[in-house]
Amino acid sequence: MGRITRNFAVTRVSVEPDGSHVTDTRADSVAGEEPLEIKVNGTTLSTTMRTPGHDIELIHGFLHGEGLITSRVDVAEARYCAGTDAEGHNTYNLLEVDLARGVRSPGREFIRNVTTTSACGVCGSTSIEQIMGKRTHPIEPVELDPQVVIGLPEKLREGQKAFRRTGGIHAAGAFTLDGEPVLIREDIGRHNAADKVIGALLLADRLPARDLILVMSSRASFELVQKAVMAGFPALVAVSAASSLAVELAREAGMALTGFTRGERFNLYSGALKPAPQPDRSV
Amino acid sequence: MGRITRNFAVTRVSVEPDGSHVTDTRADSVAGEEPLEIKVNGTTLSTTMRTPGHDIELIHGFLHGEGLITSRVDVAEARYCAGTDAEGHNTYNLLEVDLARGVRSPGREFIRNVTTTSACGVCGSTSIEQIMGKRTHPIEPVELDPQVVIGLPEKLREGQKAFRRTGGIHAAGAFTLDGEPVLIREDIGRHNAADKVIGALLLADRLPARDLILVMSSRASFELVQKAVMAGFPALVAVSAASSLAVELAREAGMALTGFTRGERFNLYSGALKPAPQPDRSV
Repeated sequence: MGRITRNFAVTRVSVEPDGSHVTDTRADSVAGEEPLEIKVNGTTLSTTMRTPGHDIELIHGFLHGEGLITSRVDVAEARYCAGTDAEGHNTYNLLEVDLARGVRSPGREFIRNVTTTSACGVCGSTSIEQIMGKRTHPIEPVELDPQVVIGLPEKLREGQKAFRRTGGIHAAGAFTLDGEPVLIREDIGRHNAADKVIGALLLADRLPARDLILVMSSRASFELVQKAVMAGFPALVAVSAASSLAVELAREAGMALTGFTRGERFNLYSGALKPAPQPDRSV
Repeated sequence: MGRITRNFAVTRVSVEPDGSHVTDTRADSVAGEEPLEIKVNGTTLSTTMRTPGHDIELIHGFLHGEGLITSRVDVAEARYCAGTDAEGHNTYNLLEVDLARGVRSPGREFIRNVTTTSACGVCGSTSIEQIMGKRTHPIEPVELDPQVVIGLPEKLREGQKAFRRTGGIHAAGAFTLDGEPVLIREDIGRHNAADKVIGALLLADRLPARDLILVMSSRASFELVQKAVMAGFPALVAVSAASSLAVELAREAGMALTGFTRGERFNLYSGALKPAPQPDRSV
């Protein structure tokens, strides 16, 4: 289906020792991310963000892991929704499963992450529209200072206490646009670490986070960009990769998004940079 | 609360150039992971696996991200469950939130990942018991060959097509106990990659996966160990860290678990190794 990776114009930024920076914008591949709605015996059980492909296997593995099926004969039929979306395309984002006779239908306790859907399943743009409709504070775009950006991951690590002992925990941090740490939180789940930062800002009456950058030790998924957009951050800096839907939502919301922020370099997926300082010609 | 990290006896394994291996077992820190049940206006909205600490912030951030609150005044009260668990300890794993008057209660569409709970919230051992009760195939423990283990991450990477192009996608693979790849799947979500592998095995009538190792490019969380246990894998090899609840479940289920499997080394959190080959003394 060609949706395992998506191409975007991505700006590679490299900061030079003299403080200037070099940019190179070209098409680059980003891991595909799209919602998959799973319907069992007519009831929507789950909507999961996944990379399209091997969806029939995914749904069997999901149902097995939940203890709902133990063998392939427990599934009478698994099929993509037969209809099309508003533009007439089959979205391949809704899978319908009929369990075999005698296999118990899942109860309410199995229903999770259910999103209101159109006839034939959600697509990426539906997910983006839902966030854009739900947020209360539009983002005022900011220009990122590349020298500040490259310093953020190390400052996040410095602020992490548990990481140094276990190496297995994610960190999220709120930083000023000048790179000063405001607060840092940790969790085994990156979404929880982000929730802790955003909750702390809310409790301190500092939302929307108009003048702050959210820094994540992890990848930038749709879910994380969603949290950042809802909290009004004008920028999200991620140490690892960004997904396709994360890039699309960041662009739509006017939020700067960087990924692979490591050493002197990062990828700018969305947003703008401060112009490099002019060389001093007076000497 | 002292639950951000947990100490376990962990065996560090290092494979020498001659094929022998050295082990060193000592107490090591592992990132804490425990379920948190979130109850809003008396209804359980979510159970999330998180690292304990800053839970009040977590719940505010979670509710804000869902668009349920916009300011701290929208929450009238947030408190830990006042009761205790069976052993008389307050589990601190259930948070009850009362929304302020006039703030709309969350509808059914916000309910997710709900687990049946005891009076005062689930604890780690409850989660483990639930999995142990649900699985259909007890694991027959195997002895891991350290030389096979250290070769698995590279074989997984070799089998990954999309990774080489984007660097942002997780892989899961099923391998024989001798390290031969059976199948490899990718996804932006590690749990989806695991579901794709397990679903493919189920469709091929190869579950329970008694003679296979599940290899993950990611960390080993409780959720991943749960999927591996349900599918009957006797071993899970993870490239990154393991969480406390992942270690506990692996030990309870009799599943071998490695983490930080990188280069010539790995940590053995659960299970046993094949004895090193005896040096040939005939020469």
